[in-house]
Amino acid sequence: MNVILLSGGSGKRLWPLSNDIRSKQFLKVFKKHDGTYESMIQRVYRQVKNASSWAKITVATSKKQVSAINSQLGDKVSISAEPCRRDTFPAIALACAYLVDKQGVNPGEVAVVCPVDPMVGNDYFRALIALEYQTAKGESDLVLMGIEPTYASEKYGYIVPKDGEKLSNVKVFKEKPTEEAAQKLIEKGALWNGGVFAFKIGFLLNRAKEILGYSSYQELYDHYDSFPSISFDYAIAEKERKVQVMRFGGQWKDLGTWNTLSEAMSDPILGNATMNETCSGVQIINEMDVPILAMGLHDVVISASPEGILVSDKEQSSYIKPYVDEFEQRVMFAEKSWGSFKVLDVETGSMTIKVTLNPGHSMNYHSHQHRDEVWVVIAGEGEAVIDEKKQGIKTGDIVMMKAGCKHTVKAISELKMVEVQLGAEITAEDKQKYNYKF
Amino acid sequence: MNVILLSGGSGKRLWPLSNDIRSKQFLKVFKKHDGTYESMIQRVYRQVKNASSWAKITVATSKKQVSAINSQLGDKVSISAEPCRRDTFPAIALACAYLVDKQGVNPGEVAVVCPVDPMVGNDYFRALIALEYQTAKGESDLVLMGIEPTYASEKYGYIVPKDGEKLSNVKVFKEKPTEEAAQKLIEKGALWNGGVFAFKIGFLLNRAKEILGYSSYQELYDHYDSFPSISFDYAIAEKERKVQVMRFGGQWKDLGTWNTLSEAMSDPILGNATMNETCSGVQIINEMDVPILAMGLHDVVISASPEGILVSDKEQSSYIKPYVDEFEQRVMFAEKSWGSFKVLDVETGSMTIKVTLNPGHSMNYHSHQHRDEVWVVIAGEGEAVIDEKKQGIKTGDIVMMKAGCKHTVKAISELKMVEVQLGAEITAEDKQKYNYKF
Repeated sequence: MNVILLSGGSGKRLWPLSNDIRSKQFLKVFKKHDGTYESMIQRVYRQVKNASSWAKITVATSKKQVSAINSQLGDKVSISAEPCRRDTFPAIALACAYLVDKQGVNPGEVAVVCPVDPMVGNDYFRALIALEYQTAKGESDLVLMGIEPTYASEKYGYIVPKDGEKLSNVKVFKEKPTEEAAQKLIEKGALWNGGVFAFKIGFLLNRAKEILGYSSYQELYDHYDSFPSISFDYAIAEKERKVQVMRFGGQWKDLGTWNTLSEAMSDPILGNATMNETCSGVQIINEMDVPILAMGLHDVVISASPEGILVSDKEQSSYIKPYVDEFEQRVMFAEKSWGSFKVLDVETGSMTIKVTLNPGHSMNYHSHQHRDEVWVVIAGEGEAVIDEKKQGIKTGDIVMMKAGCKHTVKAISELKMVEVQLGAEITAEDKQKYNYKF
Repeated sequence: MNVILLSGGSGKRLWPLSNDIRSKQFLKVFKKHDGTYESMIQRVYRQVKNASSWAKITVATSKKQVSAINSQLGDKVSISAEPCRRDTFPAIALACAYLVDKQGVNPGEVAVVCPVDPMVGNDYFRALIALEYQTAKGESDLVLMGIEPTYASEKYGYIVPKDGEKLSNVKVFKEKPTEEAAQKLIEKGALWNGGVFAFKIGFLLNRAKEILGYSSYQELYDHYDSFPSISFDYAIAEKERKVQVMRFGGQWKDLGTWNTLSEAMSDPILGNATMNETCSGVQIINEMDVPILAMGLHDVVISASPEGILVSDKEQSSYIKPYVDEFEQRVMFAEKSWGSFKVLDVETGSMTIKVTLNPGHSMNYHSHQHRDEVWVVIAGEGEAVIDEKKQGIKTGDIVMMKAGCKHTVKAISELKMVEVQLGAEITAEDKQKYNYKF
């Protein structure tokens, strides 16, 4: 089975834990049996592997997420990375071409596409296998999973099947209806469209050729920025005539908002926090070093990170997006495959960050035009390269880099440095990269 | 008029804005007409000056608060600083001796004592003048202000007057009764004891001699740590026979809890915060650099500082203390007369702080036994002294100090430095001070 996991979205709905480079699927909020925590993408990856150990998983995502995915799923995971964002149809086309051209998959094989973010049980993964099996039969070009609705939601698209059988042809699609219309649709037997579907890879590549003009990986990749932003539902599902839907009645929870996410968490507190006994229905996620104290609150979610602090009634938390869009924010922390960084202080004319490099990893060899930098090594050992000259560095060492100076560092043991940036104009864009091989 | 302002307490009830070195009276939360903010101590100081420009104000406080007081009230304010905490009676005795021995005040003059933390109007300050006038007459040794209660509080002490006149003799005192008992007291005409009283300085010094054994400033100061912790009410008010009480019916609000403090603030938001239109009765005070977003909350106070984050139902916020006592916390920031510091990062083996020195100010000349330090100047100019050698420093300069190295710095313009401390054992106690004159 080929599974394409769609890992998208900048995830502002889960601000302040998600930001432009850390989407909700990377938040480690789900407790495992061993007491450690895993993220949505780690969980779904593990669940697919458990359900079908033979599954070949490819993550379709944006360039920005590659290092986070490597950091969470390992360096060996198969990733199809869009060079820029173009909605689900081009992303899926690129992933299919990647499977054929880069992984040697036969175009006659079936691919099952599913998002990384729902909260589901093992029956969902068995349903994926059933989707594949049905698609392989060739009765239709596309087989969708139809989720039995639990309430008249305005948030989802609906699939109206021809009949009430487990497997049925699709009569019509309805995009996000009003609550009233949703209620009527449900009475007629409509199902939620959870973005889970299967097709033969060759079929999809033919459609890519027709719609985008290309079907090879290299061509799709090279012309990617010229493609329209177009969803899979719009480009394919709603246009094809031979589409089937398979009912799914098991557990399925969309974890797109704080309200649903907090329901899915097993512990009321994650991180350094205390709540008194007069609190009820309170969920706290604290990624900061300082404690949170909650008193006398009911059905409230509190979430704190170096990006900001959210305190919201659980229901209200669904409406967070427009407010967060207003915040013009510097990215204050990030986890990457090579390590992490955290902004410690921002002043006019300076910025101080903490950089942590994992053993064996290095940063890009680079220089800045408009700022000087100072490294103070606070833990570990490494090798710095400053204007082509290599030097060992260790705790207590200081490295000064004037504007224009090329520099990089490789960690031998876990290396932590305080980096002070000095200059009138400090921007992420002021970075020239060079090649260097340690 | 001699006014002794009692500025005490470590103020955990207003955590996380108050900490061991910043008590609630220094929080700048009250908006002035010009749009700037002032603290409790700044407001009461200004109000006393406005009500009686001839008033001689002395702040009785602990050593720890001296630099905060100088920073907020200026270098010229008169301060009587306890060498250690010993409750109100020794503190008031020391302040009276300070007035006589250090300020040349005649012991026959009256001193009016009042706390810095109630929220009051101009009539309160007129009442202080009336207290002084009544005390000067010599009808009694002590004249208390009795505040007309607005509800049956368990938090206050009660004064039961002999009759219902404006001025009356005191029949008895009742310390913090139950709500029921408080209700009965109020029905009998009892008044709140707000800690405001007046006496002749000589009278108080005689009592100091009797109770503590000394009455001169130097003696009291030198023997201070041998004194018992004993309140003024217990030592004097409840024991004296010639005590009068003067009724006060004007505005008086104790600002000891978030509940009362937030009521006294004119703006719902102080700092970087947004609340949506479904919030009501929400008060946000944010001293952090990152935004707070509040949604769908009612009668909640949110307060964030580098020490932590409080989210509490307003009424529940009165019960904060035991929870905060549980937090074992490093002081994460402080404002001093010389400038400020803020902890940016704490790791095993290192701590990174930002130090800001006001122009003309310097830190103590000192060394550390168990840690190296690095300064990176991020703004301004100054003069550093490192092992007796003076050197000019400016933005971008780096100063390295090994353990044992004596160092200090004086700011020429406002000087900001990132200081990285490195060592297995980093403690506030590891500091040897030396003399140095710039």
